[in-house]
Amino acid sequence: MKNKALVLFSGGQDSTTCLYWAIDKFGSASVSAVAFDYGQRHKIELVSAKKIAKMAGVKLDILPISTFSALGGNALTGSEKVKTGNAKKTGLPNTFVPGRNLIFLTFAAAHAYTVGIHDLVTGVSEADYSGYPDCRKGTIKALETSLSLGMDYKFKIHTPLINLSKKKTVLLAKKLNAFPALALSHTCYNGKRPPCGKCPACILRKKGFDEAGLIDPIG
Amino acid sequence: MKNKALVLFSGGQDSTTCLYWAIDKFGSASVSAVAFDYGQRHKIELVSAKKIAKMAGVKLDILPISTFSALGGNALTGSEKVKTGNAKKTGLPNTFVPGRNLIFLTFAAAHAYTVGIHDLVTGVSEADYSGYPDCRKGTIKALETSLSLGMDYKFKIHTPLINLSKKKTVLLAKKLNAFPALALSHTCYNGKRPPCGKCPACILRKKGFDEAGLIDPIG
Repeated sequence: MKNKALVLFSGGQDSTTCLYWAIDKFGSASVSAVAFDYGQRHKIELVSAKKIAKMAGVKLDILPISTFSALGGNALTGSEKVKTGNAKKTGLPNTFVPGRNLIFLTFAAAHAYTVGIHDLVTGVSEADYSGYPDCRKGTIKALETSLSLGMDYKFKIHTPLINLSKKKTVLLAKKLNAFPALALSHTCYNGKRPPCGKCPACILRKKGFDEAGLIDPIG
Repeated sequence: MKNKALVLFSGGQDSTTCLYWAIDKFGSASVSAVAFDYGQRHKIELVSAKKIAKMAGVKLDILPISTFSALGGNALTGSEKVKTGNAKKTGLPNTFVPGRNLIFLTFAAAHAYTVGIHDLVTGVSEADYSGYPDCRKGTIKALETSLSLGMDYKFKIHTPLINLSKKKTVLLAKKLNAFPALALSHTCYNGKRPPCGKCPACILRKKGFDEAGLIDPIG
C-alpha cells in the first residue's frame, strides 16, 4: 500500500505543481490537501484552492489561523501596500511573516497526525527570489526533526521544488499535466484576475513561463 | 544591558514559576509575557494570567489561536470529559493536542521577532507525569534550531523546569518569592476555584507541595 500524503496548498502556482507531483508519486486516492485561512488579503487564493482541489479530485481541508494579524501588520495580512524592495532592516521583503512556513508546516503536521498521514509536501524553493529563511533546506530538515520528536511520530517533508527555478517548475508542471489546474491558480499580489501583470509575483511567474518557452494557461 | 526575555505564560503553576525565574535572571523591566487564547475549556486560565502579570509588573500579550479546535476535538478544547488514563492508542493522555507546544513556541518566537527579543522561556518539564513529547529536551533543542534557521534570527529557549520534579518546582517558586503569584495561579482541569482537588492536575500540584513540605498558597 502506498503512503498517504498531505499537500500544503495555497492555490498558487508552486503548490498546484506540488499537488500534481504528489498525485503522480502517491496516487490521487492517497493525496489530500490542506490550506490556511490566515487573514490573507486576497481570499481569491482560497477560491482557487477549492477549484483546483475539485479538479484534481482530492480532499481539501481549510484550517483557520487567527494569529498572524495579532503579530502586527504586514503586507499580506494588513493594508500596507506591497513593495518590491527590502522594506525592513532585515533585508527581507515586507511580505515576510516571521516563521509563516514553520507555522503552516506545524499545523499541517498536527492535522496529518490526527488523520494518520506521515508524508507532507510543500512547495518551498531555495531558488525563489524571495530569500525567505523558512524556505531553505536546512530549515525544513530541522523542522522535520522537531516535528517528528515533538509529536513522537515520523514525518517526512517532501520539497519537490526546493532546487527548481521558476522555469524548471513550469516544465515540471507541464510534464505532470498540471496546466489545466494552473489555469485556475492564483499568483497576483494585487488579487487581480486576470492577473495585474505588474506586481513582483506576476512578473516572476511570467519570467518562468517565458524562459520555459510556454504560454501561461492563466491567460 | 541585559537581554530581553519573553515568557510563555498560561497562568498556571509552572509558567508562573518561570515568570519569576525570568524576572530574577533578566530583571523585571526586561521581561514580558505571552499567553494564548486557543479555545481552552477554562478561560479562568487567562484571568489568572492577567492577574499574575499585573502583580509581577510585566506586559502580557494574549494571542488568539483558532486552529486547534479545527484539528478535531480533544479534552482541552472540546467537551470530552477529562480522563486520567491513556485515552488514545498512542498511550498519551487525552489532553494531548499534537504539537501544541511547538505551535506555542513558534508563535511566541514570531512575536519575539517582531519586538526584538531573542530569549524565550517556557515551563516544559521532562519530569512531568504527562509524557508529552513536545516537552522533551531533544524536541526543544531541535525546535530552537529550526526557529533560528527559519527566521534567520538567533533564539535561545530557556527551560528552567526541564529537569525539575513538581517538588523542586515548588521549592524554586518559594526561593523566587513567587508564592503570592501562585496564590492567583490556575491548575484545576475542571476549572474550579477553589480547585476541585480531585482531577489529575490538582492531585499532581498537591503532591508537589506535600513533598516540599509547604502549604499551597492557593488555599
